[in-house]
Amino acid sequence: MRRIKTAVIGASGYSGIELLRILLRHPGAELTALTSRQSAGRTLEKVFPRFRACGPEAKLAFIQPDLDAVAATGAEAAFLALPHGVASEFAIGLLERGLRVIDLSADFRLKSPAMYQEFYDHPHPAPQLLEESVYGLPEIHGAAISTARLVASPGCYPTSILLPLLPLLRAGVIDPASICVFSMSGVSGAGRKESIPLLFCECNESLRPYSVPKHRHLSEIEQELATAAGQPVVITFTPHLVPVTAGMLTTIYATPLPGREEVDLDAIYQEAYGAQPFVRLLGRGGLPDTRDVVKTNFCDIGWAGDARTGRLVLMSAVDNLWKGAASQAVQSFNLMFQIPESTGLQSI
Amino acid sequence: MRRIKTAVIGASGYSGIELLRILLRHPGAELTALTSRQSAGRTLEKVFPRFRACGPEAKLAFIQPDLDAVAATGAEAAFLALPHGVASEFAIGLLERGLRVIDLSADFRLKSPAMYQEFYDHPHPAPQLLEESVYGLPEIHGAAISTARLVASPGCYPTSILLPLLPLLRAGVIDPASICVFSMSGVSGAGRKESIPLLFCECNESLRPYSVPKHRHLSEIEQELATAAGQPVVITFTPHLVPVTAGMLTTIYATPLPGREEVDLDAIYQEAYGAQPFVRLLGRGGLPDTRDVVKTNFCDIGWAGDARTGRLVLMSAVDNLWKGAASQAVQSFNLMFQIPESTGLQSI
Amino acid sequence: MRRIKTAVIGASGYSGIELLRILLRHPGAELTALTSRQSAGRTLEKVFPRFRACGPEAKLAFIQPDLDAVAATGAEAAFLALPHGVASEFAIGLLERGLRVIDLSADFRLKSPAMYQEFYDHPHPAPQLLEESVYGLPEIHGAAISTARLVASPGCYPTSILLPLLPLLRAGVIDPASICVFSMSGVSGAGRKESIPLLFCECNESLRPYSVPKHRHLSEIEQELATAAGQPVVITFTPHLVPVTAGMLTTIYATPLPGREEVDLDAIYQEAYGAQPFVRLLGRGGLPDTRDVVKTNFCDIGWAGDARTGRLVLMSAVDNLWKGAASQAVQSFNLMFQIPESTGLQSI
Amino acid sequence: MRRIKTAVIGASGYSGIELLRILLRHPGAELTALTSRQSAGRTLEKVFPRFRACGPEAKLAFIQPDLDAVAATGAEAAFLALPHGVASEFAIGLLERGLRVIDLSADFRLKSPAMYQEFYDHPHPAPQLLEESVYGLPEIHGAAISTARLVASPGCYPTSILLPLLPLLRAGVIDPASICVFSMSGVSGAGRKESIPLLFCECNESLRPYSVPKHRHLSEIEQELATAAGQPVVITFTPHLVPVTAGMLTTIYATPLPGREEVDLDAIYQEAYGAQPFVRLLGRGGLPDTRDVVKTNFCDIGWAGDARTGRLVLMSAVDNLWKGAASQAVQSFNLMFQIPESTGLQSI
Repeated sequence: MRRIKTAVIGASGYSGIELLRILLRHPGAELTALTSRQSAGRTLEKVFPRFRACGPEAKLAFIQPDLDAVAATGAEAAFLALPHGVASEFAIGLLERGLRVIDLSADFRLKSPAMYQEFYDHPHPAPQLLEESVYGLPEIHGAAISTARLVASPGCYPTSILLPLLPLLRAGVIDPASICVFSMSGVSGAGRKESIPLLFCECNESLRPYSVPKHRHLSEIEQELATAAGQPVVITFTPHLVPVTAGMLTTIYATPLPGREEVDLDAIYQEAYGAQPFVRLLGRGGLPDTRDVVKTNFCDIGWAGDARTGRLVLMSAVDNLWKGAASQAVQSFNLMFQIPESTGLQSI
Repeated sequence: MRRIKTAVIGASGYSGIELLRILLRHPGAELTALTSRQSAGRTLEKVFPRFRACGPEAKLAFIQPDLDAVAATGAEAAFLALPHGVASEFAIGLLERGLRVIDLSADFRLKSPAMYQEFYDHPHPAPQLLEESVYGLPEIHGAAISTARLVASPGCYPTSILLPLLPLLRAGVIDPASICVFSMSGVSGAGRKESIPLLFCECNESLRPYSVPKHRHLSEIEQELATAAGQPVVITFTPHLVPVTAGMLTTIYATPLPGREEVDLDAIYQEAYGAQPFVRLLGRGGLPDTRDVVKTNFCDIGWAGDARTGRLVLMSAVDNLWKGAASQAVQSFNLMFQIPESTGLQSI
Repeated sequence: MRRIKTAVIGASGYSGIELLRILLRHPGAELTALTSRQSAGRTLEKVFPRFRACGPEAKLAFIQPDLDAVAATGAEAAFLALPHGVASEFAIGLLERGLRVIDLSADFRLKSPAMYQEFYDHPHPAPQLLEESVYGLPEIHGAAISTARLVASPGCYPTSILLPLLPLLRAGVIDPASICVFSMSGVSGAGRKESIPLLFCECNESLRPYSVPKHRHLSEIEQELATAAGQPVVITFTPHLVPVTAGMLTTIYATPLPGREEVDLDAIYQEAYGAQPFVRLLGRGGLPDTRDVVKTNFCDIGWAGDARTGRLVLMSAVDNLWKGAASQAVQSFNLMFQIPESTGLQSI
Repeated sequence: MRRIKTAVIGASGYSGIELLRILLRHPGAELTALTSRQSAGRTLEKVFPRFRACGPEAKLAFIQPDLDAVAATGAEAAFLALPHGVASEFAIGLLERGLRVIDLSADFRLKSPAMYQEFYDHPHPAPQLLEESVYGLPEIHGAAISTARLVASPGCYPTSILLPLLPLLRAGVIDPASICVFSMSGVSGAGRKESIPLLFCECNESLRPYSVPKHRHLSEIEQELATAAGQPVVITFTPHLVPVTAGMLTTIYATPLPGREEVDLDAIYQEAYGAQPFVRLLGRGGLPDTRDVVKTNFCDIGWAGDARTGRLVLMSAVDNLWKGAASQAVQSFNLMFQIPESTGLQSI
């Protein structure tokens, strides 16, 4: 297998670490550049002892995030594991230097600069790229991803919410106005940063909602839901922080449209995902458990009908750092470079 | 303060342990009998080392659950911390012997034998007591509790769901058909029993829904909601198991009735609970955290309006073993015996 | 009971929070001043939502740590819950203003300025007070504590190590050169500070030694061991960080002196601690568990003989924030002000 | 790579699950038989949803542990992941049928039937095999393993204790009588069985020693230490249960022999393990963290000298289910079948 020379820009956060974990064992990727302002000059194994003795790449040194230096390594692909708002500048420069970019931040996920302004409270820094960028949900946009220069890889909430909902909206089965979403996220989703509320003693034995009622990622979620529904969609969504390191569990209620109450969800999901390697359909009554997906690229989906209220209950589980971040980005990388889709992602 | 002679029937589960923890320090209670089939003959401190050296009661020995023996200790009050279905037999016998009973099981919470049959799959063993028993939510039924012979103390899901919803239904503010509920429970809620799915290694780093879509306690929840609404209420509810020992967080969505969109929730909640010592109103935008209520009798309630969808978001936090079980039962005990309501429950 | 007007200086760390939790329910203490640079001007319940509705003190506002302002509240006692090195300055000023001081930091625990210099790498800021200060281990120095102006309350490692060892050294049973100590601490022992290594995701599922081989608190531990042994004592000690919020478990190996191999440890411990309300002797073969002591002032001690090697195995469990910090300081407070020793400390 | 037909006998415990996780992705192994009394007739993915969609093996059905049926699948190798005492019977029968056996239980780890009797309280069921069986620590007995019919793969305590100690005993550096060992184990080490003390709520926020003072695995540990030392060795060892799912951290004290105080541990360890792919030497002052080894076959070793007492401090970290069980067994499998040693074990 040809190994694509690959750069990882900003690899010191939790998504970045998982990205390295995957790429270091990916037979189609060759890491040529790792950048980190704070770790520049130190080797991978010094910064992350976990990677000691993992192979020659363990001796690779972080460099400053200099775009010319990155390009000089011959990298064809770059993953951006940078905070929101920082990524766009790097994306522009790397695209100019001929690299194809997979951005794990939220910078290029919206099509509408106005919606970006509404949810992020400042103008988009590179609106000219919004049209070109492809929303990196491989189960939905696989063909576009395969030819994209710039992939905006979705995060954990969008992934766990969109995968169960999109087939039902496309099939016109549920009332878009009825969608109620609740999610629980592991603490790693909040990032690796010096913060009192993220200390062990603050999170352990704590359950808490946050970002009520308007989490920023609602913008991209609703954008994709609207595309599937063929009409605007607005949903209610509450994220919760729970004391696990990794994992996300989403439970969704939605009401069938009149006349669609008896629809066969099994068939709809089978048609949508039956050929997808990373969506596992648990069937009617199937209940996902994040333990079954942690450190994998799988999204497990179960569903049930609540005969008493008429609502449907949809449930999904992903690893917020894998299918919700790093491994999904690698799935797009595989598609972009005509590498078999599951390459490097067959952990169990 | 006169000390009420008190028996605890079946004190080896997690609710029972917390009940003992509270009663052992309660100035108005004197433990005269502890029963446990498996621990009979052993002292409290032998069975639960936590209670060593806590005072003379640490030497109290468990006895077999013999009703005459319990009555012979002079007990006026009995707490039943028994599994569902076992409690009713003891309740009948203790009432016959003149004790007043606070039952922590689900046996006497429903008014309708038919609803009991529907949700528990067998006829109610003592339907003649259903009329008399009082649903032991002190913030709602305080007056009836104070004179009751038999109090059916609610569990954690009903408590965390009913307290935020009842004032809004009574005030006619929300559409009963719109109620969507999502709860997370600590593992202690599943009980202290030999069970693979409750092992540390099965629950740690796991997030999972269960009892989808028809949890048994929906029956009592909907009974109380209907009383407040003045009409039948059916809701959608999904419980989730999360890796904390104690704590329950509930998030609820509901839609205001036409014309009530601008209603002042703060005023409604203030009127309902402003004088209640154990409900803490966090106000609009207030976000509860189970860490703030664990090992207390408090229920913390916050709320928000989702202007984009028009829905209300209600959030509550309780300790599933305290306000959701043991301390709430003691709160009823206080009311029943004219003891100041907060006695023994002022932990912080 | 007369209520002693009491100040808490620096109450925003984990020990400070537990101190407040205890003092807010202590019938012999009246909180008159809380200081915190970062929280000055905000009420207790705003800073710590846990304390909402706990009583009138919930409305007490934090003030700047101004010594005159503290004294002006009429405070007779002050607890210092400040970082090492900061406490001494406050202690001096408060003593000058006539308050009696219980210092939870390490500033006044050593008698020797030279030893302080060796372990803390700078000269002691107030050596004139080292002679006067009393090492606040109530089971050992109770009489001196009761008349002290300045009590240096020991932390968790010293408490959990000294209580099992001191009686054996005083009785001349073990070889001081043979002492090997291993401890595990909950994460709260590392403090409430912005720090990557203390994040939930760094501590969860992690076990790690630290401060190898010379933890600072060895200085005070060895000082007290030497006093008991009547000769210098040097020990090997390794602390470990483990993913619990609270709790400390210490395991100690020591070799009996020749001729003392058959000594009756039960009798020695019984004599030392039989009348002490907060040491629970689990006996030969008794194995402590931190779950039994968390949120209590108890130190549980068990022991065993290893017939194969001749060594003794001593094991202790404390709550690092209670008996290892806050509640132990309150125990000294009780002794200093002739309040019954267990007052405010009877949690179970 | 030729794929060795492989059976796993008794795969429903925690070690068995990890063994399956590794073998399912091992390019040199082909699973032909999985046995489990309780799961017979069900497919791998039904019993362990984690393995859904992992490949064709997910459809493999468990069979009853019938030796002829296992042999009929053509299996050349069998892993025994059975409880102590049950394994020996299967080992005999599989050896008779020509399979080579890697036993993860303790049944064949001791050379002396008398020592077995002493530590396990009954005669050894197959003493004739004790001579032949090879203690499966690849870093020590690699050559013997490569030709063995029966490998007794060591568990977590022996692995984490032996790897740091053996080179120092072989080099005659430390006094065998001075060895003091302290270990912490994740809860998975206690097995996947219905047991109250292993429930989430019993283990969470709990730290506890157990098996004091004579854990059964001391027998094999001391056997191997004695071989390295060339003299009998008896040590003191205390295991502790701590609330992590996986991971083991061991801290050891030992005193250098007279004249060996200045010995260069770095050189000794480098000579012993410098060429070993799965021992990572952290060097003097290096502190292992179980997070760096979980889900890997690495043993990380750090050390320090305690100048104050003259003792050495040795520290090791392994994943109790990987290097301490499943992956170490696969490492032996690789050696036995002339497969490159790291095959299937390069997780990071």
